[in-house]
Amino acid sequence: MFREKLRAASQRNNSFLCVGLDPDPELIGGRHLPGYLQAVIESTLDLVCAYKPNLAFFEALGPSGMNLLIESLAPVPKEIPIIADVKRGDIGNTARFYARALFEAYDFDAATVNAYGGWDAVEPFLAYADRGVFVWCRSSNPGSADLQDQRLADGRPLYEAVAELARSWNTRGNVGLVMGATYPEELARVRGLCPDMLILVPGVGAQAGDLAASVRAALDERGGGIIINASRQVVYASTGADFARAARRAAEGLRDEINRERKAALAAMGSGGGETSW
Amino acid sequence: MFREKLRAASQRNNSFLCVGLDPDPELIGGRHLPGYLQAVIESTLDLVCAYKPNLAFFEALGPSGMNLLIESLAPVPKEIPIIADVKRGDIGNTARFYARALFEAYDFDAATVNAYGGWDAVEPFLAYADRGVFVWCRSSNPGSADLQDQRLADGRPLYEAVAELARSWNTRGNVGLVMGATYPEELARVRGLCPDMLILVPGVGAQAGDLAASVRAALDERGGGIIINASRQVVYASTGADFARAARRAAEGLRDEINRERKAALAAMGSGGGETSW
Repeated sequence: MFREKLRAASQRNNSFLCVGLDPDPELIGGRHLPGYLQAVIESTLDLVCAYKPNLAFFEALGPSGMNLLIESLAPVPKEIPIIADVKRGDIGNTARFYARALFEAYDFDAATVNAYGGWDAVEPFLAYADRGVFVWCRSSNPGSADLQDQRLADGRPLYEAVAELARSWNTRGNVGLVMGATYPEELARVRGLCPDMLILVPGVGAQAGDLAASVRAALDERGGGIIINASRQVVYASTGADFARAARRAAEGLRDEINRERKAALAAMGSGGGETSW
Repeated sequence: MFREKLRAASQRNNSFLCVGLDPDPELIGGRHLPGYLQAVIESTLDLVCAYKPNLAFFEALGPSGMNLLIESLAPVPKEIPIIADVKRGDIGNTARFYARALFEAYDFDAATVNAYGGWDAVEPFLAYADRGVFVWCRSSNPGSADLQDQRLADGRPLYEAVAELARSWNTRGNVGLVMGATYPEELARVRGLCPDMLILVPGVGAQAGDLAASVRAALDERGGGIIINASRQVVYASTGADFARAARRAAEGLRDEINRERKAALAAMGSGGGETSW
């Protein structure tokens, strides 16, 4: 099961940090792409709970893109889950093939999806009970207000309706949410609606989210239930020859900062800042 | 420009029919995939205004999928536009890479996108002014009501808000909509909101849309502005050795039926059932 695999990796590395792999050729320069990402992965293996490749960046490389992705991910041991960031969504018959691609052809542990098509657009992913499915709920980009913040007739913003739908779909315990880091109040409200679900928080770092506020808002009652992602901040911590060491330093700093915020939040909740309790 | 290329192909073949390429290995059986699709394409080249490969079906084939797609599309002459059905959508920096993949690495003429991320999730596609961008507005699957039909505080269903957003983004004339065929009333309402935009209607045939009602509802004032897609109904018209001839017969029948409905609708509008007037 995805959630158990994630929990084990998180406990082993004492980490709620996910490193996002978004290879931008302009930032990598003339370097060999799989080699660059392999070095970043090898230098952060003991600091993360998951890796999250963003498939857009590999698709942009053309027909060899997915082979480059597979090669890039080779150093990830099978104990660390890999979340495919793809935001896929389409009607049922098409969704079945997207799910087959992600969970069979590429064997990812989890994927992000788009729920605009409703129940039968997401169910083909959910049917893989051992995989994680993160429903895109609230993003942190400027245009996110265009639709996600639209007020429904019953007063809820659309993203809350998405969160509640996702909760209703969580009959197998494999549904999570993607919630941008720059809106801690929205994060806290959604955590209240979905107390038992995983929340994947992208956008820490380059997207200017407030790490401390996001961690506190997203934590569940037991001080867990979160995956805090950083991509560019780690992968391009340095553009020099020391990029792998710089990635490690950045990942270690983020991991420790997340843990400090978790401890403080747990203490404030009265649990005495005890052990990780996934 | 996409729209001019589409118009020229439509006029040359007197057709508003798009053939969707959704290769399901179970239906193709043991046949060579690119060869199967090439035969379907070669037998329908003079009957369509566009082809629409659904990339989910190729991604499900694993790392060789996109090469198989390129091989499958080889018989399409450069005069016939190819619409990538991908429903992509993500925050701006990621959307830029999806757009680069679709419009540069693969050089598609148009793509379907998901607007959940708002303006900056779609703008990287729109920036390719010579390509078409079809915003997923209303689908015809059972779960489409879950979000698309949600009433906003101002009384509009969400899909109408999406249509109006898409219209506001159409400053370069390259935005269209994807509207399922099974809801002619919704189609007519959206056509009223977006009189000048292309409407791509998937789901004729296997998805049980009412072809006649959909054509009448989606047509613009000049009797054009529509792309009527059929996938399985054409590609798997026969599963026997005569599949290519059967695909041609199915495509010809659909093309002619669409044209009959167009003529009837134009006559009813008082234009005397005249010539195609894109």
